Amino acid sequence: MSGNTLGLLFTVTTFGESHGPAIGAVVDGCPPGMALSEADLQLDLDRRKPGTSRHVTQRKEEDRVEILSGVFEGKTTGAPIGLLIRNTDQRSQDYGDILQTFRPGHADYAYHHKYGFRDPRGGGRSSARLTAPVVAAAAIAKKWLHQQYGTQFYGYMSQLGSLEIPFKDLSQVEKNPFFAANADIIPQLEAYMDELRKAGDSCGARIEVRARNMPIGLGEPLFNKLDADIAHAMMGINAVKGVEIGAGFKSVAQRGSEHGDEMHPDGFASNHSGGTLGGISSGQDLRVSIAIKPTSSIMSPKQSIDLDGKPITVQTKGRHDPCVGIRATPIAEAMLALVVMDHALRHRAQCADVQVAVKPIPAARPGSTPD
Amino acid sequence: MSGNTLGLLFTVTTFGESHGPAIGAVVDGCPPGMALSEADLQLDLDRRKPGTSRHVTQRKEEDRVEILSGVFEGKTTGAPIGLLIRNTDQRSQDYGDILQTFRPGHADYAYHHKYGFRDPRGGGRSSARLTAPVVAAAAIAKKWLHQQYGTQFYGYMSQLGSLEIPFKDLSQVEKNPFFAANADIIPQLEAYMDELRKAGDSCGARIEVRARNMPIGLGEPLFNKLDADIAHAMMGINAVKGVEIGAGFKSVAQRGSEHGDEMHPDGFASNHSGGTLGGISSGQDLRVSIAIKPTSSIMSPKQSIDLDGKPITVQTKGRHDPCVGIRATPIAEAMLALVVMDHALRHRAQCADVQVAVKPIPAARPGSTPD
Amino acid sequence: MSGNTLGLLFTVTTFGESHGPAIGAVVDGCPPGMALSEADLQLDLDRRKPGTSRHVTQRKEEDRVEILSGVFEGKTTGAPIGLLIRNTDQRSQDYGDILQTFRPGHADYAYHHKYGFRDPRGGGRSSARLTAPVVAAAAIAKKWLHQQYGTQFYGYMSQLGSLEIPFKDLSQVEKNPFFAANADIIPQLEAYMDELRKAGDSCGARIEVRARNMPIGLGEPLFNKLDADIAHAMMGINAVKGVEIGAGFKSVAQRGSEHGDEMHPDGFASNHSGGTLGGISSGQDLRVSIAIKPTSSIMSPKQSIDLDGKPITVQTKGRHDPCVGIRATPIAEAMLALVVMDHALRHRAQCADVQVAVKPIPAARPGSTPD
Amino acid sequence: MSGNTLGLLFTVTTFGESHGPAIGAVVDGCPPGMALSEADLQLDLDRRKPGTSRHVTQRKEEDRVEILSGVFEGKTTGAPIGLLIRNTDQRSQDYGDILQTFRPGHADYAYHHKYGFRDPRGGGRSSARLTAPVVAAAAIAKKWLHQQYGTQFYGYMSQLGSLEIPFKDLSQVEKNPFFAANADIIPQLEAYMDELRKAGDSCGARIEVRARNMPIGLGEPLFNKLDADIAHAMMGINAVKGVEIGAGFKSVAQRGSEHGDEMHPDGFASNHSGGTLGGISSGQDLRVSIAIKPTSSIMSPKQSIDLDGKPITVQTKGRHDPCVGIRATPIAEAMLALVVMDHALRHRAQCADVQVAVKPIPAARPGSTPD
Repeated sequence: MSGNTLGLLFTVTTFGESHGPAIGAVVDGCPPGMALSEADLQLDLDRRKPGTSRHVTQRKEEDRVEILSGVFEGKTTGAPIGLLIRNTDQRSQDYGDILQTFRPGHADYAYHHKYGFRDPRGGGRSSARLTAPVVAAAAIAKKWLHQQYGTQFYGYMSQLGSLEIPFKDLSQVEKNPFFAANADIIPQLEAYMDELRKAGDSCGARIEVRARNMPIGLGEPLFNKLDADIAHAMMGINAVKGVEIGAGFKSVAQRGSEHGDEMHPDGFASNHSGGTLGGISSGQDLRVSIAIKPTSSIMSPKQSIDLDGKPITVQTKGRHDPCVGIRATPIAEAMLALVVMDHALRHRAQCADVQVAVKPIPAARPGSTPD
Repeated sequence: MSGNTLGLLFTVTTFGESHGPAIGAVVDGCPPGMALSEADLQLDLDRRKPGTSRHVTQRKEEDRVEILSGVFEGKTTGAPIGLLIRNTDQRSQDYGDILQTFRPGHADYAYHHKYGFRDPRGGGRSSARLTAPVVAAAAIAKKWLHQQYGTQFYGYMSQLGSLEIPFKDLSQVEKNPFFAANADIIPQLEAYMDELRKAGDSCGARIEVRARNMPIGLGEPLFNKLDADIAHAMMGINAVKGVEIGAGFKSVAQRGSEHGDEMHPDGFASNHSGGTLGGISSGQDLRVSIAIKPTSSIMSPKQSIDLDGKPITVQTKGRHDPCVGIRATPIAEAMLALVVMDHALRHRAQCADVQVAVKPIPAARPGSTPD
Repeated sequence: MSGNTLGLLFTVTTFGESHGPAIGAVVDGCPPGMALSEADLQLDLDRRKPGTSRHVTQRKEEDRVEILSGVFEGKTTGAPIGLLIRNTDQRSQDYGDILQTFRPGHADYAYHHKYGFRDPRGGGRSSARLTAPVVAAAAIAKKWLHQQYGTQFYGYMSQLGSLEIPFKDLSQVEKNPFFAANADIIPQLEAYMDELRKAGDSCGARIEVRARNMPIGLGEPLFNKLDADIAHAMMGINAVKGVEIGAGFKSVAQRGSEHGDEMHPDGFASNHSGGTLGGISSGQDLRVSIAIKPTSSIMSPKQSIDLDGKPITVQTKGRHDPCVGIRATPIAEAMLALVVMDHALRHRAQCADVQVAVKPIPAARPGSTPD
Repeated sequence: MSGNTLGLLFTVTTFGESHGPAIGAVVDGCPPGMALSEADLQLDLDRRKPGTSRHVTQRKEEDRVEILSGVFEGKTTGAPIGLLIRNTDQRSQDYGDILQTFRPGHADYAYHHKYGFRDPRGGGRSSARLTAPVVAAAAIAKKWLHQQYGTQFYGYMSQLGSLEIPFKDLSQVEKNPFFAANADIIPQLEAYMDELRKAGDSCGARIEVRARNMPIGLGEPLFNKLDADIAHAMMGINAVKGVEIGAGFKSVAQRGSEHGDEMHPDGFASNHSGGTLGGISSGQDLRVSIAIKPTSSIMSPKQSIDLDGKPITVQTKGRHDPCVGIRATPIAEAMLALVVMDHALRHRAQCADVQVAVKPIPAARPGSTPD
């Protein structure tokens, strides 16, 4: 495959460009018999949608998803689920300029050298808009995993630019445009973004994603460790430059006596591992952290070259997210859910009838701090 | 596949356990006509080998690789290359104890719940010993990429436990057991390790890996971005808990005006991107950083449970690396080479005859600091 | 993948059901820079279309294909090509009866036991209607292969029920509804079909497919032999029960002295191999023959069981092809083109820079009969 | 992958050449906990072994298989199973001649044009010797399928050259070197082969393979129909030129009223479908028939060209099977078992918890003839 399909057994194959007629996905491998409607997918699509606050791109997209196949009388049939989202806000654009230059930090230069030319419309295939069908597809996985194992996915922003966002209250996440688990810090975040926008600049963000009520035993021993596949999925999100599982880069300075999570009959005492042991889920919560770089499209001028290799100055106009990380939380959850789903099916294939005499212990012992 | 194959076109399929009769790999997709002998593979195998200093496991393994197929009269034929490494130091072990317990931080608990039981011999399939055939396989990729594009891979340790290792001199890397690019710091590292061993504890490490003279255009737009596949490969290495490309987690606090690498006719002015734009190689050096957790096998006691769920105290005996990161540099290089190789072949498939009018600019303009 | 994707490098992922809102495909891996428009795809879609003669189903479908992505300013970009065909003739159907029974020879019984229930609308996912997006996708492959190597695909019917159709004149194929390369036999075929329809019965057909101007060297040594992948593709077409390459089943009674195609400086003397040697294309024409079973939906009553396992009598009503083989020629060509395309890309990946000193000989020496 | 791996979830990756040091396979995806020893594999290896009668190649190979991994204390662990077979009879050969010519009907010409040169030792990678590790791998699948579902695989020769072999008695199959289910015809087959050998010629064969006690529901709707994957596997066997499922090419002349297998509460009334409906197993016996072409290596002279394109006469010397079909029965069984195994695991992945209210009917009603 040429890189537009994710997964081995639960596969998502996407198509579309930012300013083409439509984007979409084919979701294959969903178990049959699950109740599914477009409303199930719309919820996460709406969480990802642009134009919902002054801090994100003002592109107006309904992002209405249409289920084209794979569902009969409200239930999945086992056949592939075709998803279609029409692009409604394809502003006709004078992209002549863009085609003559390579914007610093953009995919322009790499695409041009790979394919010989490129589709300049709104970033074409490299646009973050392509995460919409992925989010819709993942909603199917989330629903199935929740019904099957009670697994739940959630995420929140833990840093915006240089501002750390202390975790306080998960219930706040959906109540502010930053997906911050902390109501008190919102004014500070708002001010930070306003200053940034005024400066014509952009910033990065750090997002945390979690899965709880994880089934044990997901992940394959060597190259398809659960955490390896998570890293793959996360680094595949636009603008992501780093991925951590559990203690992540902090584990470098940890000692073994501290890092290894002790087990007790009443549960794990800590979760430095981030939910996997030897690449296989342990039943602890999955803990993933990702770094999102600052948006490349900024109003301030940068040096670059044109198609003739001549030096030029590039300055982006138009509607752009000054921090793509603001909308990244639902996307990161989606990628995590897709990986877990694929591994849940893989696990059934090889180990459906494994009998384990040993009873699993709780994900976290009472009083332990999972993070 | 059940997770023991890496790659789509240049594939490495491994088998074997730490204390079984042999380990090995089938390497498929190598272009025909390349000179290849066992000596080409032995070099990197020897760099990875245990028992070469007092800071690593004292297991004595020759790690002699035998090429079983795919080479005729000293040249690759295009057929799969079978690699075999006999295990010579399979100490008969009293693993009865191990089988009754779940060691904290080990794969034991997860394997047991996945498969219903497990192979306790030296960690079985989850042992770092399994990286040997991968290193051998990657030597084939390295050779081909060097011949084809002049691409070179190298790595070094940048942090040992809490000690940062300032980069000074690449030529030092092969002259010390830590793969440190800094001769002055070696006594400090030695002392750190001696103290750790005395304490019966272990520590983590941070490894940097680089590829230079990279072809442009490798990587696929969406899910198989070059950096996504790198993250997958790196997180698949035993004990890795974090992966960064380019500026990594530092990019969170960067502004767009700083992060986006400016382009000039004489080259890129910086390399915060780490060598990819939109997931596709830009011709800049690949820059990857990984976090390796402290070894789980430590001499100091930890709390755990036994097969009956009863609380027990676990204390590891026997030969173990107090810092698996010490030997991880050649492994990380290997994984990077395998990903680049696979994408080099994928790129030829789709874009072999693309004509690019634009001349690429140098990877780094004179005077720029690539990191 | 769950079986709805064909190919490794040039992939076709389909979705849709016979009577859902739409069917379609995502085509991934097309080389960039090729001129492509909907008209290129429509030609073969029209050849496959129902309702074009009284001998095929009278379902009225426009089968208008829409390209949703992957093409910019009339050229492929290298991004996935989304194809959409709206179902326009979804007659509301009283399928209550169908849901209560298992029709002999239909997929009903197998689907029901696999998925627990099924989508009865026009056969759902098992309908031959799903070949439409495949035919559209293959038109892309055909165009590229023709531009790249001059490769051409064609097919014709060689047997209808018990009537053999002697090959006479390829130029007749598109001039009759049977794809017969023989004008003289058409009245006989018409009469045969009329009699069949009157009897409320159905019949099978044999289709020949060919590729000429084949590049040499396509196919992989062991499991992905070119002929193995052809067999896979052909047997994946609805109602196909047999596949032959070259001499096929006739080779059983041949002697080696007869079968092995002699080579001369002016070309191959015969083509019993059907265009492959050791599973790899030899430059000779590909010769494939397939058997299509009689349509299962017939007007005459057959014994079956209902959902309660009780015996019942089933009799199909409604519009059905009395011989699905009549419309199968463009489908078989499409499948052959998709396999050749995928292998053309695979070949470039591994062998793009192979230099062959030996000059290939012509596909057929003057005076030889290729079949 | 470059064509040396079969399967998606139960994968067999082979390596080796006819006259290299060893051949082997990595078998991945075997469910854990199954008792397995080398003796389980040796049985089928011995059935496939050369040198067992005067009608097959006199190469003396022990074909001793060594299990290198994936088994602990006599049980599969879920880790990949490494299989190794040393080549013991690698006669040093004067292949200088062979390298200068292209033998008609051999892979020489295609390999040379694909890879630029080739390994001439005993056919190298294109040798039928490579089926040995496949047969060993399939023995694992056979054992698991038998334990899990009672599924059994068997095969027999139904035609040798121009001699049809009427099916009489399955118990005879293992008692004669032809795998004929008919004791009476053996003298005739012996005479036929003796005459052939005297003439320095070769002949083809037709082999039937069956699976009984098939689980229902295996196979995926579109491109990975069970029969499509069977066709792929069968056509991947050396020298196979045709594959039929069920009625095969006979279905062309059948009417729908005859072909569609009627269902009754006490079972299917016939088995023209060959065990699949819509590409999904119906619980009926799988019925597969394959055509094997006459061996290309014959003693009688044939016209060909040399490396300079000059006409030459080729005449094979040395030990060769005058009918490779004689030893093909265990290989065809093996391929069938591998496909069924892979689909059994795939089925569990998607449909492990499907509840089917309808009771399956027997594979064949009393008194029906399954063929």
